[in-house]
Amino acid sequence: DTLSQSQFDTVYNFLSLVIAAQLFTAVFLLISLPRILPRYRQAITVAIVVCGIATYHYFRIFDSFKEAFVSESVGGTGTYSQAEGAAFNEGYRYVDWLLTVPLLLVELVAVLALARKVQSRLLVRLVPAAALMIALGYPGEISDDNGVRGLFGILSTIPFAYILFVLFVQLSKSLENQPANVRGTLGNLRYLLLLSWGVYPIAYLLPLLDIAGADAWVGKQVGYSIADIVAKAVYALIIFQVARIKSFDDD
Amino acid sequence: DTLSQSQFDTVYNFLSLVIAAQLFTAVFLLISLPRILPRYRQAITVAIVVCGIATYHYFRIFDSFKEAFVSESVGGTGTYSQAEGAAFNEGYRYVDWLLTVPLLLVELVAVLALARKVQSRLLVRLVPAAALMIALGYPGEISDDNGVRGLFGILSTIPFAYILFVLFVQLSKSLENQPANVRGTLGNLRYLLLLSWGVYPIAYLLPLLDIAGADAWVGKQVGYSIADIVAKAVYALIIFQVARIKSFDDD
Ligand SMILES: CC1=C(/C=C/C(C)=C/C=C/C(C)=C/C=O)C(C)(C)CCC1
Ligand SMILES: CC1=C(/C=C/C(C)=C/C=C/C(C)=C/C=O)C(C)(C)CCC1
Repeated sequence: DTLSQSQFDTVYNFLSLVIAAQLFTAVFLLISLPRILPRYRQAITVAIVVCGIATYHYFRIFDSFKEAFVSESVGGTGTYSQAEGAAFNEGYRYVDWLLTVPLLLVELVAVLALARKVQSRLLVRLVPAAALMIALGYPGEISDDNGVRGLFGILSTIPFAYILFVLFVQLSKSLENQPANVRGTLGNLRYLLLLSWGVYPIAYLLPLLDIAGADAWVGKQVGYSIADIVAKAVYALIIFQVARIKSFDDD
Repeated sequence: DTLSQSQFDTVYNFLSLVIAAQLFTAVFLLISLPRILPRYRQAITVAIVVCGIATYHYFRIFDSFKEAFVSESVGGTGTYSQAEGAAFNEGYRYVDWLLTVPLLLVELVAVLALARKVQSRLLVRLVPAAALMIALGYPGEISDDNGVRGLFGILSTIPFAYILFVLFVQLSKSLENQPANVRGTLGNLRYLLLLSWGVYPIAYLLPLLDIAGADAWVGKQVGYSIADIVAKAVYALIIFQVARIKSFDDD
């Protein structure tokens, strides 16, 4: 596949945008940590780690992209074609998700500051389900066979549906016990999660729908970039907001 | 395009100057943070993040410049011409502004320490307008067609004018309620903002006025560099000054 210069630039600039967004969300949270009551620091610490892991992987993805697509024309104008001996590694994304998706759920549960028992009951369900969802998606992602992709997609959707069930049904009772001035924010946070997480299975479906080519590929990279910023950085800032409000209330 | 050695050196040294200025403004503010009352730390934290994001992008811009212009003469004397397969990426600037311009407005509003309601009413207007202004400028910047550049320039000027209206008309009442000994500084800060922000639309206009060539390009990079130092680092130091004075008063 070849990319036009503007397609190349679009992906290039979006990948760099994600690095800046994740890195400086982590920096912001790290500097702001002392302003949060100790009991909510666990949630913010996990958020810092998640944005840090994403920063690392986006540095890798950025370098992988720069190595995989090259132009020979003066001034880098004209088309970019695939380099010899260098593939663009989509695998970084699955490695990233394997670590960060369970942690995103830990963040959410931690900021609720529930009773120890309720908390571990939730985590014991959400964390393995999240890891299983990503692990089951990976064999489908790297397969060229649409049958294999479809099969693992369905298998991966089972833990995904279970996570949504826990978040939207089982968690609802705990949300009612949260202070009134954060209940709305937490409700919106769940919808932001649903919306941003929904991007990933849709991107996975594209090859099954025979949507391919350079435009679709560029669209997918841009979609992943925006979804990653929303699902990690924006999500972390909302969790920070909740922790700040609860810190004032408890004071 | 080719650059003479002195043109190359000028851009090279200015880009490095910006890295040093932004990075060590961030370091200075980070070290000074504990000397500020907690209520003004949000403003200074955002200022640190803004200078940090600019540092990241200037490292990238610097590397992109070094890759895009090369000389083959011994000792690097003589002219520098455009390299094969490497473009100078102006896109970094727009990615930077997309993140930092809204945050510069957050900084300003945060240091005023207004009532929660007044603050969110201001931010809900300023932040989306700033993001929209940059997003609308980008398609014009990357287009070779002067018609497209003109059209998006006009569209982008609408949110720009709106921001100035909010800052110079709607914000004036809030400024009157600030302590007397910072009122003058805050007034000057608005003019410094107007002056430095004005550089960007002017640089955008140059191709429409048929001002092109190596000299104009070098001038634009130098102008951006100076404007970026004033609009972020100098601006942050003035905000810090305001926060220091208010911290003494409140003590
Ligand atoms: C359901 C499903 C999937 C779900 C992926 C999800 C939900 C990923 C979430 C990633 C996040 C939140 C990243 C954070 O930035 C896969 C694995 C694509 C495989 C196809 C079926
Ligand atoms: C009005 C206008 C523009 C305004 C840009 C501004 C106001 C940028 C400010 C940047 C800052 C403050 C950077 C900080 O260092 C564009 C996008 C060039 C497009 C043309 C019309």
